[in-house]
Amino acid sequence: MSEPEVQVRESVISRSRLEMLFDGIFAIAMTILVLELKVPEIANRNSVAELATALRHDGPTFFSYVLSFAVLGMMWYRHNVLYRHVERISAAMLALQLLQLAAAAFFPFCAALLGRYPTNPATLIIYSGCMLVYQSAATVYWTMAKRSGSLRASVDEAEYHGQVRRLRRATVILSMLVLYSVFLSTLRRG
Amino acid sequence: MSEPEVQVRESVISRSRLEMLFDGIFAIAMTILVLELKVPEIANRNSVAELATALRHDGPTFFSYVLSFAVLGMMWYRHNVLYRHVERISAAMLALQLLQLAAAAFFPFCAALLGRYPTNPATLIIYSGCMLVYQSAATVYWTMAKRSGSLRASVDEAEYHGQVRRLRRATVILSMLVLYSVFLSTLRRG
Amino acid sequence: MSEPEVQVRESVISRSRLEMLFDGIFAIAMTILVLELKVPEIANRNSVAELATALRHDGPTFFSYVLSFAVLGMMWYRHNVLYRHVERISAAMLALQLLQLAAAAFFPFCAALLGRYPTNPATLIIYSGCMLVYQSAATVYWTMAKRSGSLRASVDEAEYHGQVRRLRRATVILSMLVLYSVFLSTLRRG
Amino acid sequence: MSEPEVQVRESVISRSRLEMLFDGIFAIAMTILVLELKVPEIANRNSVAELATALRHDGPTFFSYVLSFAVLGMMWYRHNVLYRHVERISAAMLALQLLQLAAAAFFPFCAALLGRYPTNPATLIIYSGCMLVYQSAATVYWTMAKRSGSLRASVDEAEYHGQVRRLRRATVILSMLVLYSVFLSTLRRG
Repeated sequence: MSEPEVQVRESVISRSRLEMLFDGIFAIAMTILVLELKVPEIANRNSVAELATALRHDGPTFFSYVLSFAVLGMMWYRHNVLYRHVERISAAMLALQLLQLAAAAFFPFCAALLGRYPTNPATLIIYSGCMLVYQSAATVYWTMAKRSGSLRASVDEAEYHGQVRRLRRATVILSMLVLYSVFLSTLRRG
Repeated sequence: MSEPEVQVRESVISRSRLEMLFDGIFAIAMTILVLELKVPEIANRNSVAELATALRHDGPTFFSYVLSFAVLGMMWYRHNVLYRHVERISAAMLALQLLQLAAAAFFPFCAALLGRYPTNPATLIIYSGCMLVYQSAATVYWTMAKRSGSLRASVDEAEYHGQVRRLRRATVILSMLVLYSVFLSTLRRG
Repeated sequence: MSEPEVQVRESVISRSRLEMLFDGIFAIAMTILVLELKVPEIANRNSVAELATALRHDGPTFFSYVLSFAVLGMMWYRHNVLYRHVERISAAMLALQLLQLAAAAFFPFCAALLGRYPTNPATLIIYSGCMLVYQSAATVYWTMAKRSGSLRASVDEAEYHGQVRRLRRATVILSMLVLYSVFLSTLRRG
Repeated sequence: MSEPEVQVRESVISRSRLEMLFDGIFAIAMTILVLELKVPEIANRNSVAELATALRHDGPTFFSYVLSFAVLGMMWYRHNVLYRHVERISAAMLALQLLQLAAAAFFPFCAALLGRYPTNPATLIIYSGCMLVYQSAATVYWTMAKRSGSLRASVDEAEYHGQVRRLRRATVILSMLVLYSVFLSTLRRG
């Protein structure tokens, strides 16, 4: 954290293309969440009551759609905030970014699991675990960007540390959520 | 509506990236509409009559594809018209935009429902309800953009109010459609 | 074709955003072609012969994947060639463009049909019919762009007419293909 | 390799649009990998043990997700490195690029096959074969870009040959993998 200008090198990848891949993967992940919502089979095609009952039965899936869309939207927004401060991307930073993208692209599966088994503690482990992987990678990414001197000159210490605090706080909260769901799972299993 | 310059602040997000996410989600939502069209199972693989009958049976799904593609295309076009007048995006505006995107990404499910149960009034509630959520968010977005001074200086009062009128008209029409389908549902249920 | 400067007006939509929607829809349509390829069920999970036989049985689907990817790639390339000559987009041109996009997004269904019922003449009607809709819209689009004075000044008469010839030739070939498949269908049905 | 300036012509396609198509297809291919992960059916919805067992049973599919995401990420990164040196795109280069894209869009099927039949040698042939097609096209693309004088002037001989070596090395490794899996298949079949 003390030698920001040691490794100043060229970006291994064009900033705008990584942005395009990032936005593309988020747009797709957010949109394919909907594929988990299936049109129900009902006997009387015109029955309002039957369709309403069938859809109400899928309530957790609708809830998971809304929650997961909001989570992905928030991740995307936070990435945007951090990414505008990044000037160069090193190979290690690219690897972390791909790890984040792998977690984001995996998220629709977590959302499907939550829609289907909302009360199973194992679901909660996977759902919050995926968010934790994403968040931890973001935290390491940010620290690494600073250390390798890849941040823009306009990022002062206050801004940098403010973001670190936010990233750490989110990481701690998610870790606690994962631990809590592991604890719940153990109770249920025992 | 009277103090446009009170809260002039920096955009919380880069305009071009929100645009990219927006266009990405619309492109995907428009394209995955097709996933609802399934190749039918027929006994005689070479029978023209059998394949034609099977496809005709899926008529409502084809109709829903065309209608929903047009609806999404229209939403996308209207967003484009309004968005070019927006200079800054506040946190509240971003939240509304994500709500609009959640509604747009949800639309393929509405389209699938319409293709499957076109005569069920509950379908109509959901289909028009989703459009109403999108449209209401657009209306609030536009008013909020004006109030927070986020519109470009080139937008004069006539332009602003012209757009407000269009947005309100569409909101009213969609509200009436939703109310009408709620009314139909009540009739059918009773 | 004689008064190119009569209706010179502003573009109803930003060129770059329509480009983004266009490229997005093509990218998605080209990629979801693969969703039609299903992993076969085999009894002995390790049997090379069984897996090979099962996949060979899906031969037409693989063929349709390759053909349809090439068709979409060609459409995309040709659009690119024409679009770089377009300076402004009128409302009617936007409507035609959305029609083209609806045809392109519909294409994966045609591809699935071809993979499943490759020898059914009705498949050929739909497959070539979808291409014909796309192609006709492109032809009208180009002529309309010229008439409304929406082409760049750099497009000379030779260039314009060269493109018209190419577009008409493709339209004629596709029309003949559609007619031929309608003819085949009639034979088979009779 | 000796007459770089013979065929200097205009690019047949806009560089930025090919980039957009490329990034779009990769983003989608990487994200639809997740569609292969299915939420398992379990009897007791709240049983942690049952859900954990069911998911563990899908282990190869999760492994294939991670591996295939990494492979696509690596392909995308390598393309980026080479593509920034390319100034013009000839018709033949565009055809090769579309071949690469067809292989990338086909990759989710290979990933699904690997997740399902990880120990079947035929799977390995297809998985590594698809990578070989992509890689060979990339190698020819690069050589062809040089010969047709389509590389930027900033690419010196050392850079060019360094990339050729890397491309050839990867092609040789993948060829050996394909041959090895063909050999395994023959053993298993015999």
